[in-house]
Amino acid sequence: MRRFLDLADFERDEISALLELARRLEKCPEPHALAGKILGLLFFNPSLRTLASMQAGMARLGGTSFVITPGQGTWQLETKLGAIMNGAAAEHVREGIPVLASYCDALGIRAFADGKDLAYDLAETNFNAMAELVDKPLINLESAANHPCQALADWKTMDDLQVPRGGRFVLSWAYHPRPLPLAVPSAAVHMAAMRGMEVIVARPEGFALPPMIMDKARKAAARSGGSVRETADLTDALQGADIIYAKEWGSTAHYGDVAGDARLRAELQSWCVRNDWFAKAASECRLMHCLPVRRNTAIADEVLDSPRSIVQREAYNRLVVQTAVLYQMLKGV
Amino acid sequence: MRRFLDLADFERDEISALLELARRLEKCPEPHALAGKILGLLFFNPSLRTLASMQAGMARLGGTSFVITPGQGTWQLETKLGAIMNGAAAEHVREGIPVLASYCDALGIRAFADGKDLAYDLAETNFNAMAELVDKPLINLESAANHPCQALADWKTMDDLQVPRGGRFVLSWAYHPRPLPLAVPSAAVHMAAMRGMEVIVARPEGFALPPMIMDKARKAAARSGGSVRETADLTDALQGADIIYAKEWGSTAHYGDVAGDARLRAELQSWCVRNDWFAKAASECRLMHCLPVRRNTAIADEVLDSPRSIVQREAYNRLVVQTAVLYQMLKGV
Amino acid sequence: MRRFLDLADFERDEISALLELARRLEKCPEPHALAGKILGLLFFNPSLRTLASMQAGMARLGGTSFVITPGQGTWQLETKLGAIMNGAAAEHVREGIPVLASYCDALGIRAFADGKDLAYDLAETNFNAMAELVDKPLINLESAANHPCQALADWKTMDDLQVPRGGRFVLSWAYHPRPLPLAVPSAAVHMAAMRGMEVIVARPEGFALPPMIMDKARKAAARSGGSVRETADLTDALQGADIIYAKEWGSTAHYGDVAGDARLRAELQSWCVRNDWFAKAASECRLMHCLPVRRNTAIADEVLDSPRSIVQREAYNRLVVQTAVLYQMLKGV
Repeated sequence: MRRFLDLADFERDEISALLELARRLEKCPEPHALAGKILGLLFFNPSLRTLASMQAGMARLGGTSFVITPGQGTWQLETKLGAIMNGAAAEHVREGIPVLASYCDALGIRAFADGKDLAYDLAETNFNAMAELVDKPLINLESAANHPCQALADWKTMDDLQVPRGGRFVLSWAYHPRPLPLAVPSAAVHMAAMRGMEVIVARPEGFALPPMIMDKARKAAARSGGSVRETADLTDALQGADIIYAKEWGSTAHYGDVAGDARLRAELQSWCVRNDWFAKAASECRLMHCLPVRRNTAIADEVLDSPRSIVQREAYNRLVVQTAVLYQMLKGV
Repeated sequence: MRRFLDLADFERDEISALLELARRLEKCPEPHALAGKILGLLFFNPSLRTLASMQAGMARLGGTSFVITPGQGTWQLETKLGAIMNGAAAEHVREGIPVLASYCDALGIRAFADGKDLAYDLAETNFNAMAELVDKPLINLESAANHPCQALADWKTMDDLQVPRGGRFVLSWAYHPRPLPLAVPSAAVHMAAMRGMEVIVARPEGFALPPMIMDKARKAAARSGGSVRETADLTDALQGADIIYAKEWGSTAHYGDVAGDARLRAELQSWCVRNDWFAKAASECRLMHCLPVRRNTAIADEVLDSPRSIVQREAYNRLVVQTAVLYQMLKGV
Repeated sequence: MRRFLDLADFERDEISALLELARRLEKCPEPHALAGKILGLLFFNPSLRTLASMQAGMARLGGTSFVITPGQGTWQLETKLGAIMNGAAAEHVREGIPVLASYCDALGIRAFADGKDLAYDLAETNFNAMAELVDKPLINLESAANHPCQALADWKTMDDLQVPRGGRFVLSWAYHPRPLPLAVPSAAVHMAAMRGMEVIVARPEGFALPPMIMDKARKAAARSGGSVRETADLTDALQGADIIYAKEWGSTAHYGDVAGDARLRAELQSWCVRNDWFAKAASECRLMHCLPVRRNTAIADEVLDSPRSIVQREAYNRLVVQTAVLYQMLKGV
């Protein structure tokens, strides 16, 4: 495996094999598998799980990592082509990224959406421009519209708990004080569709997922026997849910327009997941969230502290599945 | 050993065994003892010695560490229960800490005192709430009112230099422009009392150590044959001292009241340790301090640069004793 | 090797042997050579290449590193002797540096010029004061007026590409919005002179390199058969150049005087390296730069993106030569 950028780049069989490898390495660790290998980690945005679990994953396999955080101990990096660099950024990614790639055996990059132009972000303009500069194995640690490590961990989490392949997966919008990127909702609907689930996206008016994201998920559903639909009727969506996957994101009707987004958002504080959301769900219905989550804003304490919540297992599975990705990418290379 | 949170959790014999192990590993390193083991380090506050020596200690034993610093490359973490998280913190410790614990074999946490409510801080409310969330071995890297790694290193430092078990240990308040936490003075008086020393706390009026701290030290003294008393008469305290342990802390009479503290503090700039402090001390009397120290504010150059100062050895012993703690915690687990 | 602070501390034969070792380790890695060894890295200033490549170099040899960045997760460190520390810095380097040295097998320090007093900076007052406190092997990761790791990488880069030992090496001043330190120009002219090249420094009036730097380079040239001269006539300098080494630096006529520097600088935006700079150069003439570089400010895209540019190879060679330095310093110690 040279690149782990999007679950859509893989066949279902390949994902199954990767999850099988993850389970094997979890049971039978191989502490010397990546001895002498180096993973470079480039974070343009904050991180807790990714930062810790990527380092831990390399260490579990006997490898090493280094972390670069532009603006914190490192120069700010310019990403725009043709820029006349007389501002804050001291270095361009066209230099910085190939240099970092030359110091390691694989590189991981996190670069969130700009949040100004929807088409620009959906096209992964920024991430792709950087990816083109990397001649080593590359991992997407969350880009404008994707988060394959999270999606893979979520898939394994549902497998672990025997959530039915054809079960009902409700991705519900949740309240947050500010607009957040589309990376996780986009990755989650595609992953659930690819897993063969009945996917329902429940979100207020003005927060519909872009057609490009929905179409990609529908294409995956068509191959797996799943389905994908969208609704503003939360009550209806939650009926019979096997999974409620809560996620905050910005208004797509007002993308890049903070004031327009805020006007809609102000009325939506009731989209905080509470126990009563599970009233008509399947009895075993679980709560998923990629974390970080704002308690009592996006999800109430009563839900996060209940046995329905499997957010800890999702986070732990980040380590487990990434270990498999690193192994497959770097072992024997 | 599952937890290293407070020297008071151990018997004197156990501390002696730990120091013996530290000396053994210093002489005969075991560079593969913790191969494959991972230490997570969570720093809510700045660090130099702890940050470097914990990483170095793991590396000396063949293990690996990762460092998480909320607010620097990582989200700010909320610590209060029941918080409605619509402010700066993006994640709650109730999620963040179990997640980090799931990525490592042992976790170290540094979380200084809030400095607002004395009872809240003395009860270790904050640290204990986090400790409850950790199901892995846990190390206190300095909490509101404790610093066991420092205390253990100080103990070893005195043993190294054959400072008598029954010698006179003077903990003296020292000037600092701002109120600092009670963690080190609290840990130092308890440690010296547990070691069997004649402990004298010399501090200006308004800076008495809280009864809870003094009582704990007195209890340790009662078991070890030591003693503990407090005085505002510095000259008297310094007579015959074997150790002058300088430390800055905030007014306990005005805890959390910066203005009240500042009024007292303004008159106390003479509490800067100078050579003449040693005039009536024992001839071999040493100067100890946990570092960082402000030169010519808390302690004069003439003292820090003299052979009396053993602050470097204390700092070096942080590495030595922590290596033993990590070994005992993680070897064979 | 106990110290790697300045290429001038070594004979040409020793540099050749170091470069030979670098080539050998590049071809035949020794992934266990430094098992159990620890490198401490202390960065007073931002870094990308140095930060990543020093960690990668230790990892390639089986060793470990820790990174300390004063003011980011660590206290600010005071460097002035005799300071009354009632300001922002919580710790003095006289404590901090020996402590860090005691935790590792070798220490690397980066500390840029103060940029106020030229004599103070040229004398390496700051770096030398810190170096005196270190009783372990020490690496200069860029000081006020030196950058030996960069110089060694640049030397190897020219060897790799068979740039003639007696070829023409033009160090040209390049535009930057602010005055930058003299470390790289100083190290580059000395390195090229020591390599035996015909060195020409091309710079606007007011930006002459200080006599101390030129004299040191001339001394090296005298031993190697090279030469060193300086000119304000860029067109003349570029004729027949084998290497154009672009570098930004501050006015030496107005050192520490930002306004005076800015007045000169405002007229110098044409000193941005473009394709036409190579018109009368040797046909194989290459563009070198230590990075980071501001695109279209110091060097145009058309040059950086052309085959003339060997900046990536210079950066990659940082890893290669530093691995040799670390190996020679720490192997068998």
